[in-house]
Amino acid sequence: MAQAAEPPSGTRDFLAAEVRRRERAFASVRAAFERYGFEPLQTPAFERLEVLTGKYGDEGDKLIFKILRRGEHEASGEADLALRYDLTVPLARVVATHGNRLPMPYRRYALGPVWRADRPGRGRFREFTQCDLDTVGSASPLADVETLLAINDGLLALGVPEFRFHLNSRQALYGLLDAYGVPDELGSRVLITLDKLDKVAPDGVAAELVERGLNSDTAAALVADLAADEPDRVRKQLDGTERGRAGLAEVDRVLALTASLPAGRVVFTPRMVRGLDYYTGPIFEVTAPGYPGSIASGGRYDGLVAALGGPDMPACGGSIGIERIMSIQAAQESEDSTGEPNLDVALTVMSEETQPALVELASALRAGGLRVGTYLGASGKIAKQMKWANDQRAGFTVLLGPREHAEGLVTVRDMTSGDQAQVPLADAAGYLIDKVRG
Amino acid sequence: MAQAAEPPSGTRDFLAAEVRRRERAFASVRAAFERYGFEPLQTPAFERLEVLTGKYGDEGDKLIFKILRRGEHEASGEADLALRYDLTVPLARVVATHGNRLPMPYRRYALGPVWRADRPGRGRFREFTQCDLDTVGSASPLADVETLLAINDGLLALGVPEFRFHLNSRQALYGLLDAYGVPDELGSRVLITLDKLDKVAPDGVAAELVERGLNSDTAAALVADLAADEPDRVRKQLDGTERGRAGLAEVDRVLALTASLPAGRVVFTPRMVRGLDYYTGPIFEVTAPGYPGSIASGGRYDGLVAALGGPDMPACGGSIGIERIMSIQAAQESEDSTGEPNLDVALTVMSEETQPALVELASALRAGGLRVGTYLGASGKIAKQMKWANDQRAGFTVLLGPREHAEGLVTVRDMTSGDQAQVPLADAAGYLIDKVRG
Repeated sequence: MAQAAEPPSGTRDFLAAEVRRRERAFASVRAAFERYGFEPLQTPAFERLEVLTGKYGDEGDKLIFKILRRGEHEASGEADLALRYDLTVPLARVVATHGNRLPMPYRRYALGPVWRADRPGRGRFREFTQCDLDTVGSASPLADVETLLAINDGLLALGVPEFRFHLNSRQALYGLLDAYGVPDELGSRVLITLDKLDKVAPDGVAAELVERGLNSDTAAALVADLAADEPDRVRKQLDGTERGRAGLAEVDRVLALTASLPAGRVVFTPRMVRGLDYYTGPIFEVTAPGYPGSIASGGRYDGLVAALGGPDMPACGGSIGIERIMSIQAAQESEDSTGEPNLDVALTVMSEETQPALVELASALRAGGLRVGTYLGASGKIAKQMKWANDQRAGFTVLLGPREHAEGLVTVRDMTSGDQAQVPLADAAGYLIDKVRG
Repeated sequence: MAQAAEPPSGTRDFLAAEVRRRERAFASVRAAFERYGFEPLQTPAFERLEVLTGKYGDEGDKLIFKILRRGEHEASGEADLALRYDLTVPLARVVATHGNRLPMPYRRYALGPVWRADRPGRGRFREFTQCDLDTVGSASPLADVETLLAINDGLLALGVPEFRFHLNSRQALYGLLDAYGVPDELGSRVLITLDKLDKVAPDGVAAELVERGLNSDTAAALVADLAADEPDRVRKQLDGTERGRAGLAEVDRVLALTASLPAGRVVFTPRMVRGLDYYTGPIFEVTAPGYPGSIASGGRYDGLVAALGGPDMPACGGSIGIERIMSIQAAQESEDSTGEPNLDVALTVMSEETQPALVELASALRAGGLRVGTYLGASGKIAKQMKWANDQRAGFTVLLGPREHAEGLVTVRDMTSGDQAQVPLADAAGYLIDKVRG
C-alpha cells in the first residue's frame, strides 16, 4: 500500500507551494521570451513512435517511453506511440505539419514536460520540464544574437544574479583541428575529449587524445594552447586556417552585438565544445557561481530540422535548464520561507443559523478579489476552528457567534497582531478588503 | 510524409493564438478557484498501471493508454504504467501518499491534460484538459455549497454569461424510488432510464422502464410526475418517505445558501440523475443556452476516495467542461478577431553596420516591457521587410537606413495609421514606449 501509493519512480506530485513556485518561474521566463517576439507552442504529450525513434541515438532510443497499441492490437505487445523525449523533435514535426501556416522565420518557445526512462537519481527525474526557444528559417547572425539575449533575459527573470556565456563556434573548432593538422576522421573524437578540460587535468586529456590516435606532440601542443585559457593564443592559431577565420568572424560578430551586456557576461571560450554533433555555427554554454555544470546552452544547427523529419531549413536556438535552476534555488531558500498565506480571510462557522450570512460575506469578499475559506470541519469548538485558520496562515479570521449575529456584528481578528475588532456585519466586507489591501 | 507529419490521431498542436486563448481561460478559472482557498495540485502524466485499472469500469479500462515496460522487459509486451485517465484517481492516490502533509479538509483544484483512447471525433480528443475541484475530508454542507459557488464563479470567469445549476440529491432519488415502490434491485437501472427524460419523450421512457421490469402503472405515474417539470408534485411524493425527506433537506439547504445568486441560477430538478453510481449526496449539472449538453457537473461522493485507493473520507467536488466551453466559444468568435499583434515594435535591418544600434534599441525597448522583433530574413529590400512587419501585426516599425544612421535618426512608422516620424536614435526608445503604452 505504502509503496503503491507513491507516484511512479522518477516522477513528482507538486503540492500547492511547489506549483506556485514553479508557475512563477515559468511565467517570468515566458514573459522574457515574449518580449523577443518568440511565440508559444504546445504539442501533444505523445508522438507517433516512428517520429521519435532513431533521433536520439541508441542510448536515447532505449529511454523512450513507448505506448502499447490498444484494443485488439494490445495483445501484440507492440507500441505505436511514444511520450515526447524532448521539445526539438516535436518542433521539427510541427514545421513539417504546419509549414505554411507558420510565420517565417518561425520563432517559438516551448515550456513543458518531457519524459525519459532514465535511472532516477538526485535531481534526475523521468518527468521533467524543458524550456526551449528556437528560430527556424533564418540564417541571420542576428537570430543567434537574439537567442543569446533572450536566454540572458530569461536567466535574469529566473533570479540567477550572475552568469557567463561561454561562446565558441563549430567552425572555430574545425579550424582548430586544421591548425594542428588533426585528420578529419579523428575530428569529432578529439573534440569530445577536449571538452573534458573542464573536469580532467591537461595531462589526462592529452593522454586520452593520444589513445584516440593523435601523435603525442600534437596532443601536448593542442592541450597546452587550450588549457592556457588565453583566447589570444588560440586566435593566432585559428587565424592561420580558412575555417578558423570563418569561426572567429562568427564569434566576433556575436561578441560585438552583445557588447552592451555587462562586462564578462559573454566570453570566447575556445575549448568549449558542446557534445552534440549537430551544431554548425556559433555555440554557447552558460555557467553560474553556485550552479554546478551548465544552466543553459544552445547554438546554430542548420541541418537538424531536416534530420529530425522537418524541411531543410537553417535554425538556431537554446534551452534553459529550468529544473536544475529551480531545484538549486529551492535548496538555497531557507526552510521557513515557505509560509505564504493560503487565505486572506478565514471564516469560522459557529452555528447553522449564521451560515447564510457567512456565505454572503464570503461572496462579497471574493468579489473584491480576496481569497476566502470557510471552516468545513465537524467541530463546533472555536479553538479547533482557530487552529484551522492558523494552519491556513490566514491574514484575518472572522467570528460570527449567535450573540454577535443577534446584534448584527462580526468579530475580526488580525492573525498577525492578534488584535480583535467588532465590526457591523454590513460593513465587514469593505473593512476587510481595506485591511488586506493595506 | 504528409500523414506522418500530422500529430497523432485525436491530439492537437496548439500554435500561438490558441495557446494564448487557452492560457487566458485557464488563468481566469484558476483565479476564481483560488479565491475560495482551493489549492493547485499537479500530478505526473502517468501512474502505476494498477492504480488506474479497475477504476473506470470495463469500457473505461479499454481506453487507458498503457506504457510498455522498458529495457530487458520491453520484449515481454507488458505495461507497468499508464497515462492518467482523469484527475480524480490521482487525487485519491495523492491523499493516500501525502495524507498528513495535506491540510484537512484538503481542497484542491487541478487543471491539466488527461488521455483517453476514445475514437476521435468532432470535439472529442484523445488528449484533452480537465478542470476539477474537490474537497476531501469534509462532510459539511458548506463544502457542497462552496463547490457550487466556485464553479459558478469559474463559469462567469470563462465568459459564460447565462447558465443554470440543476440541483438534485442522491437521497432524493432513492426517496423517489421508495415513494413509487420500486424494488431496490431495479433502482439504479430505473434511474439511468429516468435520466433520459431530457432527450427521449415520456412515453419512450415509460416503455423502457417497463422493459427494465417496472409494472406499467408505476412507470406511467413516475414519468408523469417527473416530466411535468413541477418540482412541487415531486416534493409531495418525496415528503412521504424517509430518504425522500432527507434528500429534500439536502436540496433545500443548498438552495437556501445559494439564494444570493441571480434568480433561476440554481433550481431543483428532481429528474436529474447524473449517470455515475458513486454520488451519495447533493448532485448538480449545469446547462447554458447555446451550449448543448452540460458544461459542468459534480456532487458529493463520500465513498469514492476509498474506492479509488485512498483513505475512507467524505468528499465532494465538481468539474467544468472547459474544453467544450472553449471550443464552442472559439466557434462563436468571428474569424477576423484572431489578429492580435504579435509584436509591439518591428525593427528592420538594412545593413550590417546599423545592427549594433538596432540591437541596443531592441534591448532598451524590451527593458521597457515591449515585445520587439528584428528582421531575421535574408532580404535587404525594404518592401520585403515591411511585409514581414505587417505579417507580425506589429504596432510600429523602425527603419534605420545608412543615411538616417549617419544623421543619428530613425524613422518610426505607425503601422495602423501609416504615419511616419523621424526621431533621434537616442530618443527612439522613450518615444516608442510612450506610443505603445499610449
